[in-house]
Amino acid sequence: MRHLMSPMDFTVQELEDLFDVANDIERNMDKYSHKCDGKILATCFYEPSTRTRLSFETAMLRLGGKTLGFADASNSSASKGESVADTIRVISCFADICAMRHPKEGAPMVAASKSLIPVINAGDGGHQHPTQTLTDLLTIRSLHGSLNNFTIGLCGDLKFGRTVHSLINALTRYEGINFIFISPQELRVPDYITEMLNSKNIPYREVIKLEDVIADLDFLYMTRVQKERFFNEEDYIRLKDFYILDKKKLDMAKSTMQVLHPLPRVNEISVEVDDDPRAAYFKQVQYGLYVRMALILTLLNMTDAHINDGLLRKF
Amino acid sequence: MRHLMSPMDFTVQELEDLFDVANDIERNMDKYSHKCDGKILATCFYEPSTRTRLSFETAMLRLGGKTLGFADASNSSASKGESVADTIRVISCFADICAMRHPKEGAPMVAASKSLIPVINAGDGGHQHPTQTLTDLLTIRSLHGSLNNFTIGLCGDLKFGRTVHSLINALTRYEGINFIFISPQELRVPDYITEMLNSKNIPYREVIKLEDVIADLDFLYMTRVQKERFFNEEDYIRLKDFYILDKKKLDMAKSTMQVLHPLPRVNEISVEVDDDPRAAYFKQVQYGLYVRMALILTLLNMTDAHINDGLLRKF
Amino acid sequence: MRHLMSPMDFTVQELEDLFDVANDIERNMDKYSHKCDGKILATCFYEPSTRTRLSFETAMLRLGGKTLGFADASNSSASKGESVADTIRVISCFADICAMRHPKEGAPMVAASKSLIPVINAGDGGHQHPTQTLTDLLTIRSLHGSLNNFTIGLCGDLKFGRTVHSLINALTRYEGINFIFISPQELRVPDYITEMLNSKNIPYREVIKLEDVIADLDFLYMTRVQKERFFNEEDYIRLKDFYILDKKKLDMAKSTMQVLHPLPRVNEISVEVDDDPRAAYFKQVQYGLYVRMALILTLLNMTDAHINDGLLRKF
Repeated sequence: MRHLMSPMDFTVQELEDLFDVANDIERNMDKYSHKCDGKILATCFYEPSTRTRLSFETAMLRLGGKTLGFADASNSSASKGESVADTIRVISCFADICAMRHPKEGAPMVAASKSLIPVINAGDGGHQHPTQTLTDLLTIRSLHGSLNNFTIGLCGDLKFGRTVHSLINALTRYEGINFIFISPQELRVPDYITEMLNSKNIPYREVIKLEDVIADLDFLYMTRVQKERFFNEEDYIRLKDFYILDKKKLDMAKSTMQVLHPLPRVNEISVEVDDDPRAAYFKQVQYGLYVRMALILTLLNMTDAHINDGLLRKF
Repeated sequence: MRHLMSPMDFTVQELEDLFDVANDIERNMDKYSHKCDGKILATCFYEPSTRTRLSFETAMLRLGGKTLGFADASNSSASKGESVADTIRVISCFADICAMRHPKEGAPMVAASKSLIPVINAGDGGHQHPTQTLTDLLTIRSLHGSLNNFTIGLCGDLKFGRTVHSLINALTRYEGINFIFISPQELRVPDYITEMLNSKNIPYREVIKLEDVIADLDFLYMTRVQKERFFNEEDYIRLKDFYILDKKKLDMAKSTMQVLHPLPRVNEISVEVDDDPRAAYFKQVQYGLYVRMALILTLLNMTDAHINDGLLRKF
Repeated sequence: MRHLMSPMDFTVQELEDLFDVANDIERNMDKYSHKCDGKILATCFYEPSTRTRLSFETAMLRLGGKTLGFADASNSSASKGESVADTIRVISCFADICAMRHPKEGAPMVAASKSLIPVINAGDGGHQHPTQTLTDLLTIRSLHGSLNNFTIGLCGDLKFGRTVHSLINALTRYEGINFIFISPQELRVPDYITEMLNSKNIPYREVIKLEDVIADLDFLYMTRVQKERFFNEEDYIRLKDFYILDKKKLDMAKSTMQVLHPLPRVNEISVEVDDDPRAAYFKQVQYGLYVRMALILTLLNMTDAHINDGLLRKF
């Protein structure tokens, strides 16, 4: 039995297989609408995350299955002091697969070690959120045709942004990727990331202003810059507009550049950008659904091997 | 694509069609039990309302579909600052139709303007609650045979009661309706309503005591009178019993009068009234289910045209 | 129409029939996967209890049905002052069967008296939790072969433990059962229980230390001992280890003894015990699912009579 704790749990080839299934779902949704008839997904969310929870639930429902669970620890046995290990043993009696979100790093890993059903880490504190990374990878692969040879700018809070670190990490397994990190000094990407890139001879640049590099990008991955992360108010006021994507900045970008965002967005992308064909962040939500459908099928061993093979020959 | 924001979004003829479908569902529930197989309803409730939420969910489940969503803003991305416009774009990737309740007036309208799926306003602050009005209209039409020619008494808090204003408004499109407003001075129906009725030459009376008019009514629409709405304690004590329907008052009413209430009821209808055949407020809940089923089918363009035609010929 | 308020609502024979259905579900799950197609279970939980709620929901989903409801009173109409009697009348319009948990004793009974659909008491305050008792009985019957002739030790807080009192009560209807009550003086089983046992000439012993009797037991039913239930800190420190089941104590037990626990467990059973074949508390969760499936079928009159007959001949 297999779980998903980190995006790196899958080899590059396994990810290709997963994404092939996801793209087949995209093209032939109806074919998959009864694959999980009679199956149950448990969503065990020890902290609320509506978008992620609903994405998992939709994935199971669109596969013909059913869902149950909790959206919030206050309604769970956790409030009576039950351990995650015990909860998953109980959930194993109810469901066929479980998506777990937990404020504590490593909690889904503990659950997986005791579980009788596959467990998907749906976010554990500041640690991992692997299905967001799978979503990002599938979106890039689908829009770009492959996961090799492009320039990606990651913009905003690169210090605390879990999804950004995880995406950089995952992309280091592909060829010809050029990173540009766009952030204020205070919110630079951590040293362990730049050291890792140096050690692998992967090219990257660090800049302060989005305008200086936007013309070079194939993908722009936006994240939120929170006021409280700055050392002082003056810095925030001086810098904040550098990290807001508006029509004016977008005019400087390639016509083929794609804008990504893990959502929720607050004001770091102006709503005037939404109608631009390069705004891909709502497409990304759609890919997030497809990849979760593919993941559920994969972990339940319900993918159709010959479809994978057929698709693999193409790539 | 069509949304439901206000009961007046539908013409009188469209409402007749909708109610015909609802009455066909009432008679032939089984015929509809797979109409929405594979469809998903999202219930996005930014403030809790169990009855309304469960009525929508039941409607979709009884049509063969599935549901997901949130019952409370605290569990939603709204708590992270996401706009309603962004949330509905995300929900559009997950569901086929959305019922939205929001404490802010106009929020469902904003959502509808960005949505890729039909949006039903399930209540926006003190503004609109159109499916309650559709429920009231269907109940009256079903029990009375048509929406014309009857005397309706509206009793209780007529000043703040959203459902009462909406129902009066909706009824002004029909013929031969006689309104009697029964309320304390402090909680009279607002002037804009009486002015509107005057301008349309629609007859109405305003009285203080239910006993004075109950014998004249074909329908009695009860609402709650909250103590905190009175100017002073003495007025409340002096007046409150005028607005409690008990067996004694009901004895003065016609044998064919029907008692409606949007629920929840607190003490404005004595429980001794529940077993009287004229107590129609739980039937109203049932009609609320049928009308929501019909509405989902209508907004998804899944009504069976010839059934409508057939029924229409009858009326 | 029939409800379940207390485990004693069913005769011994009716329980045998119910457990026969449960065991048939255990052996032939697939046969039951569409029995409740088109049926809806409402879970009305006025206080949270995730395990119980999910067990009921799983039961209905595994029977092919659907679920709706609320997990918490704060999201329900109760917060607007609606009575349980009114809520169940409304729920009767939506669902085919209802599982209700309520902090107030007797609330499910009030609901049942007004309901148009079967109501299952899913726990009412400190009063009854009948499906836990049915779970315990089915587990014992399944593991022991019958509900007669065994020695059961009940260990921990025997004063306040609702499940313990209910189980003792239910077991007095069977033959050859020997009770051993293992608790600190402060948390002894209440007098009304020992008086009841005396009046029925049912043998029991009361001891302080688990070690003194564990070798005699066929079943050990563990419960939590909460620090705040002790008169003083010294007593708690002196006594608490007597009521923690670990490998060392388990080594003194029969190889066939079975350990039960209503869960959630905090630290009264060491996790080192979990892998022992005698640890039956997660099996118990599984039996809890089967018995709830059987109960739903029974209350909806959907059990297959000849299967019951067939099975009954065996016992």
